[in-house]
Amino acid sequence: MSDLQKPSRRAFLRGSAAAAAGTLGAAASAGTPDPLITELQDWTSGLGDGVDATPYGMPIEFEKDVVRRTVPWLTADPISSINFTPIHALDGTITPQGCAFERHHSGAIELRKEDYRLMINGLVDRPLVFSYADLERFPREQHVYFCECAANTGMEWAGAQLNGAQYTHGMIHNMEYTGVSLRTLLEEAGLDAAGDLGDKWVYVEGADASSNGRSIPMEKALDDVLVAFKANGEALRMEHGYPVRLVVPGWEGNMWVKWLRRIEVTDMAVQSREETSKYTDVLEDGTARKWTWVMDAKSVITSPSPQAPITHGHGPLVITGLAWSGQGKITRVDVSRDGGVTWETARLAAPGTDKALTRFYLDIDWQGEEMLLQSRAMDETGYIQPTKEQLREVRGLNSIYHNNCIQTWHVTPEGVTENVEVS
Amino acid sequence: MSDLQKPSRRAFLRGSAAAAAGTLGAAASAGTPDPLITELQDWTSGLGDGVDATPYGMPIEFEKDVVRRTVPWLTADPISSINFTPIHALDGTITPQGCAFERHHSGAIELRKEDYRLMINGLVDRPLVFSYADLERFPREQHVYFCECAANTGMEWAGAQLNGAQYTHGMIHNMEYTGVSLRTLLEEAGLDAAGDLGDKWVYVEGADASSNGRSIPMEKALDDVLVAFKANGEALRMEHGYPVRLVVPGWEGNMWVKWLRRIEVTDMAVQSREETSKYTDVLEDGTARKWTWVMDAKSVITSPSPQAPITHGHGPLVITGLAWSGQGKITRVDVSRDGGVTWETARLAAPGTDKALTRFYLDIDWQGEEMLLQSRAMDETGYIQPTKEQLREVRGLNSIYHNNCIQTWHVTPEGVTENVEVS
Repeated sequence: MSDLQKPSRRAFLRGSAAAAAGTLGAAASAGTPDPLITELQDWTSGLGDGVDATPYGMPIEFEKDVVRRTVPWLTADPISSINFTPIHALDGTITPQGCAFERHHSGAIELRKEDYRLMINGLVDRPLVFSYADLERFPREQHVYFCECAANTGMEWAGAQLNGAQYTHGMIHNMEYTGVSLRTLLEEAGLDAAGDLGDKWVYVEGADASSNGRSIPMEKALDDVLVAFKANGEALRMEHGYPVRLVVPGWEGNMWVKWLRRIEVTDMAVQSREETSKYTDVLEDGTARKWTWVMDAKSVITSPSPQAPITHGHGPLVITGLAWSGQGKITRVDVSRDGGVTWETARLAAPGTDKALTRFYLDIDWQGEEMLLQSRAMDETGYIQPTKEQLREVRGLNSIYHNNCIQTWHVTPEGVTENVEVS
Repeated sequence: MSDLQKPSRRAFLRGSAAAAAGTLGAAASAGTPDPLITELQDWTSGLGDGVDATPYGMPIEFEKDVVRRTVPWLTADPISSINFTPIHALDGTITPQGCAFERHHSGAIELRKEDYRLMINGLVDRPLVFSYADLERFPREQHVYFCECAANTGMEWAGAQLNGAQYTHGMIHNMEYTGVSLRTLLEEAGLDAAGDLGDKWVYVEGADASSNGRSIPMEKALDDVLVAFKANGEALRMEHGYPVRLVVPGWEGNMWVKWLRRIEVTDMAVQSREETSKYTDVLEDGTARKWTWVMDAKSVITSPSPQAPITHGHGPLVITGLAWSGQGKITRVDVSRDGGVTWETARLAAPGTDKALTRFYLDIDWQGEEMLLQSRAMDETGYIQPTKEQLREVRGLNSIYHNNCIQTWHVTPEGVTENVEVS
């Protein structure tokens, strides 16, 4: 242990190990060696659980706070409400299904594969009904895509409201989907009857009571939409649409219809409740933007953040967050520590991929200075994530959906982190 | 419904929808319309579960068979044993932690982050001890890697033994890991004291009773080894080494030490039990191959397979499986339906990535012919997965580990699928 009592001070700024050695060294020099190092521990002297303990494993009990959470006052009833992914506690890009946010309009339904049917009707040559087993016989594709609720960050239009990245930005998840392309199924039903496809739509609805019907332009339907039955390798969870949901890459989550039961080819948009009274953006002059399908480039720092404050001392600090764009790949993320006055380019953990989450990092030496932390995403179209001010200028204050503005966290010298607004 | 009763026969070979329409059409023409289409169902007329039902979600009850399974006769005690990933029921490439195989030598231990310590000692300038919080302050990396137990497929050396891809090839999983590179931590401790690094090693051990110590050459330690604390975005599960495990990309799973507690820089391999009496391959002449770290290119068809037989009629059939290589990227997978006489090149769901699972598909028109299904992986080094015969020629029959031979499934005209051996 003698070497451990003499940490090299020159390493202090090179990495956190110096802080580690400092802490432990201090304890050792005070005459109290770390018993976790010097004494035999129960877990090293005894046996653990066998391989038959948990056929399907859950997170360890110490991680029991890393769960989806609701905001009870947000909606009248949990049957038509939202919960939030604990993005402040996750790293990487994949979201485990177990803690991926849910949004239901009439609750999550239990539907057996045997009872599952998908109808394609309307302007097709051969109206068809598929069983689940039928869908499994078509050529499959796989892609990692993010799914973001249009209302994500919606409470922030009016100012800093919710104190945590989970609540401000947690209506998002990112999974590896396996399914059949919608194009394949539409072609199976035959599109000759539809004539010119340029002005055609598909109307998609779910088997739940809300049906949650949405109109999708044919161009998108034939592009990259998936009829998906697996996420992150395994069957969809009940709350994510088991056994089959629609995946509409880059577009608002409301269109990713769960428990998908019908796809109708039409010559006009249906103008359903979900695309008229809801999922439109009321502007300052009272008119509404509609068909606002694409989720524009956006980012958020997940740590530090209000639920993930800085709890260690000065020195090395990892700033990390997520960036995404419904228009394609993230190409760059900048981070500001002074509320947007100066910017540093963050390191992307991997090159951005199409319509999927990208993780970014900025490794800094933090000496206890106050910070106004922001991140700013850019995508392959050249689009730059706007400030809240810029967004309000064009959209006003009546909107709920499509708030992709730059988020600000205030970090105090003690490391406490709060949701604030800068102008 | 009238259109549904007249499915177009010309679509028969174009996709499975024809089979679907055929089935449903037949039912309708027999005077019994599908009540799942014509009648209002409970799940459409009632409300489902709210967003507060499951803070952390589990798979739906209908998927309760998609779990890790053990082979009770394989080992004397589940404390030092293996269970198997249900690869026959998964698709895509990501393995959810909940059903990712486990291998323990003295059971899975419960270790709090607060109680976690990692020591780096031996031939370093500054022996250091890190807490979990310290590790979180170093620059992080993310990569998707497969982890395969050296004994995966080991029972097959002697012939076709276990009837299911889960049992023959399920000692594998594939996750997105987040952690700190081992190089970073070694450099923090300082490697000047070690002198010439070309002949140095690190000895890594876990905090469980087995300690499961392994020697890793310094070249690999400084290359791509990660000290990982997240998998698929969230904390490691207890059974996968919570809170910290080693990730040794492309190398046998036994070296991916769980509950990692110590890394010693040495001037020779330790020659521990786990790399002498175990994890070596006894050849025909009684000598043993050792330092057989790399998991060579391998593949297996996951469906159809004995646990995933063909249960639908003739016509479109999706053949799918997994391929991987510890040497780098998978570049091509071929599939044979006649036991290796003729081969077709399969479609890769995505280009192969470094030391990670690649999903392949072959979409065929199956007319009930008997098949001897095989898959053959190739990697970027030009290596081609060998036959069982080729492998036995050089390794004999005494081995347990590193069986990467081509697997054969026999498919009967009824779609029943069995593990067989062809010569």
